[in-house]
Amino acid sequence: MSVFHKNSAKLRDQERARLIWLLTTDKAITSALTNKLTLVEQYDAGKLADDIAEVGALVAHLPAPDLADTLEALPSDARHALWGLVEDSKRGNVLLEASESVYEDLIEGMSDKALLDALDTLDIDEKIYLVQHLPRNLTGRLLATLPAEERARVRQVMNYAPDSVGAIMEFEVIVIRPDVTLGAVQRYLRRLGKMPGNTDKLFVTTRDKTLLGELALQTILLNPAQRRVNEVMEAEPVTFHPEEDAEKVARTFERDDLLSAPVIDAEGKLLGRLTIDEIVDVVYEETDNDIRQMSGLSNEQDVFAPVSKAVKTRWGWLAVNLCTAFIASRVIDGFEHTISQLVALASLMPIVAGIGGNTGNQTITMIVRALALQHIQPGNFSFLILREMGVALINGLVWGGIMGGVTWWLYDDPHLGGVMMLAMVLNLLVASLMGVLIPMIMTKLGRDPAVGSSVMITAITDTGGFFIFLGLATIFLL
Amino acid sequence: MSVFHKNSAKLRDQERARLIWLLTTDKAITSALTNKLTLVEQYDAGKLADDIAEVGALVAHLPAPDLADTLEALPSDARHALWGLVEDSKRGNVLLEASESVYEDLIEGMSDKALLDALDTLDIDEKIYLVQHLPRNLTGRLLATLPAEERARVRQVMNYAPDSVGAIMEFEVIVIRPDVTLGAVQRYLRRLGKMPGNTDKLFVTTRDKTLLGELALQTILLNPAQRRVNEVMEAEPVTFHPEEDAEKVARTFERDDLLSAPVIDAEGKLLGRLTIDEIVDVVYEETDNDIRQMSGLSNEQDVFAPVSKAVKTRWGWLAVNLCTAFIASRVIDGFEHTISQLVALASLMPIVAGIGGNTGNQTITMIVRALALQHIQPGNFSFLILREMGVALINGLVWGGIMGGVTWWLYDDPHLGGVMMLAMVLNLLVASLMGVLIPMIMTKLGRDPAVGSSVMITAITDTGGFFIFLGLATIFLL
Repeated sequence: MSVFHKNSAKLRDQERARLIWLLTTDKAITSALTNKLTLVEQYDAGKLADDIAEVGALVAHLPAPDLADTLEALPSDARHALWGLVEDSKRGNVLLEASESVYEDLIEGMSDKALLDALDTLDIDEKIYLVQHLPRNLTGRLLATLPAEERARVRQVMNYAPDSVGAIMEFEVIVIRPDVTLGAVQRYLRRLGKMPGNTDKLFVTTRDKTLLGELALQTILLNPAQRRVNEVMEAEPVTFHPEEDAEKVARTFERDDLLSAPVIDAEGKLLGRLTIDEIVDVVYEETDNDIRQMSGLSNEQDVFAPVSKAVKTRWGWLAVNLCTAFIASRVIDGFEHTISQLVALASLMPIVAGIGGNTGNQTITMIVRALALQHIQPGNFSFLILREMGVALINGLVWGGIMGGVTWWLYDDPHLGGVMMLAMVLNLLVASLMGVLIPMIMTKLGRDPAVGSSVMITAITDTGGFFIFLGLATIFLL
Repeated sequence: MSVFHKNSAKLRDQERARLIWLLTTDKAITSALTNKLTLVEQYDAGKLADDIAEVGALVAHLPAPDLADTLEALPSDARHALWGLVEDSKRGNVLLEASESVYEDLIEGMSDKALLDALDTLDIDEKIYLVQHLPRNLTGRLLATLPAEERARVRQVMNYAPDSVGAIMEFEVIVIRPDVTLGAVQRYLRRLGKMPGNTDKLFVTTRDKTLLGELALQTILLNPAQRRVNEVMEAEPVTFHPEEDAEKVARTFERDDLLSAPVIDAEGKLLGRLTIDEIVDVVYEETDNDIRQMSGLSNEQDVFAPVSKAVKTRWGWLAVNLCTAFIASRVIDGFEHTISQLVALASLMPIVAGIGGNTGNQTITMIVRALALQHIQPGNFSFLILREMGVALINGLVWGGIMGGVTWWLYDDPHLGGVMMLAMVLNLLVASLMGVLIPMIMTKLGRDPAVGSSVMITAITDTGGFFIFLGLATIFLL
């Protein structure tokens, strides 16, 4: 028996890399696939035919999630060339797995009919997920093709906030009654013939859908067939409500090692379920978004977007950054007289600003994480702010002392060294105070503390650093 | 029926918050619990007794993962006071769920015997996990208490790299033979009476442990009892090897929606399994670490560490940052003559440096993520670098043009405006080139691209920005 199964993740890693290599290093393949034949003529026709055959074989062999991943790693023209080769039956699943920006790029080039055909292979929960991201005119057309009950569900889901439990829950659940035996449950399951993906438990409800408990597949297998459901079920399951925040729920899934959990309404009636695979997606998205937002990239960033699109998605923060840098520059300009008297200030001031920005960003990163974990509570808030100020004071005295000494030695001016040290201590205190307050205040205002915090703290420590340093210099040195 | 089950995640959220509130706002509770009675005397004894009783009730009610989370959100003295209240039978599980820094803080204050008692309640896979983080002298003592077979396993796991599949895999698996019927499997399971946590499938092997396939619990329930295992099992499961990188494997779990997967050795023999709950922990750790490392915080950061410890964990990057800021400052100092001739340069130069740092950090964030997703391959690398340079050129011309115009207007000097624009274009090109190259080169060298990338790019764009701007000014304006 071979060590690599056909499904080996490593083998598929290699196949994805090979596909990307073929489509990006040899422009002729993309051109031939999209029928731009003028370019093709200069190439060796035999080798080209071989390469195209290999691309086709790889596309046929790779499962949908791997194809979605490959599409994400291609520039737009190669992406569309590859998309043309994906069989109709796989297209729905590829769209499902693709990130939002790739998904939008792909459906832009599809006819309405092709798109509806692709969606046709999906089950209702998958359709609901994709419909939320369709252009408006298509949403209507897709809705029209659905039975009335499913249409009502799509509408219901679209009413929930995009980052809530309601938006990611699944409707397909297996429901059983409390008074039947495990043997009867097993006969029922065999009659059904299949279960929704990632089913690890069934839900026990009354006839009017009130949730009574949950029955793990394990429990069915471990107990005698004549036991009744209500004797062996978990009667106090962890439940969620559709309005809850998906990121918080993800932390509960992690804390309790859940694989799936029921979603109930305010009256305790079962609405659907959450599964760990949706939760893992939430976790990756949450953390990806946090990382990107802290550095001022938008969520929809497509790494392989063309120049024109990439420019647009980054202009927002660049403009904000330019404004804050401009304000800091005006602060310096206000001290033009001081600098002209003592040019050394110009070369020292970026140190004060830089060290403040560094400390402020460290503090913010820590606080944003602690907020996500719900570790910050009214009780421990004052401890945290005093601790941060204490750390800043010690760091300021130690590193400010060192820089003050170096400055004294470099410029042979003890007063300049003293101003340097004092400015560093003060700017570090400002940085750590604001590093705690900015994310806390943004959370109080109901905003995501990760978005733009970094830009704000840098603006404050730059402007503050220049002002403190040049201000102290004006007072003590002129 | 009440809408909140006893297990409701929301209720536990409230209980955790209440516990933190009690232990941090009223110092008397912590003091009383740790027998520092001098402080206690000034307080109302009746209220104190009530509060302590409430703390006790909450600790008794909350499950281990919630207690671990609460301990993480407390300063050290309150943390130890709370730890003293946790029952022996829960302590092992709390340690298992606690983050590394909290775990180390807690075991520091425990006697060897108390620690070994706590570990005694855990199963072998859990012991193995914790033993990896024990102080050396305790590892030996714990190993001595284990049967020979388990001892060998612990030694085996400790040989794998900490971020590899081997370090997080579990040994407890249920193994069956291919030629038995599903009915026989079910009788076998009932005899076993329980399954390891998060079991969604059994593993089918030969007598010498060669993996033949996997049998989902779903499959057992959905098929007739007389079918044989090898007729209905998945014969090509996704498998992993113990040396593989856990973060990469996590991406495969996400891509394939896996709940568990077999780990096999080079000969295809079953070693153990990976479960989704370990994978979710890996995902959270990976992304938390990325976020923290990019801003120069160490992994072991404990948000509620005392000042002395917090100072130490942040000195490394602060020192690096101070050095790079110092170098940038020396570059400016080299142009002292230029600045003394035209003081306006001092207020304009931070804009050039700042906008470069912003762009460089955006690029690095994008590249680090694309590397983690294995989206960057030799084939698409040149596209990526040209795209980034293209974006930088356009942004430089547009925003540099605007800033150049503003400078011209402010200082009534077209040449100064021209230098400003040219410097911004050049520094943005440097920023985006280095933003792609730094993480790529660090990956080539086998290092984590997230660690310190941000500090390096800022150093380059600061120093480069000052040098380019002041250099151009010296050439064109003096």
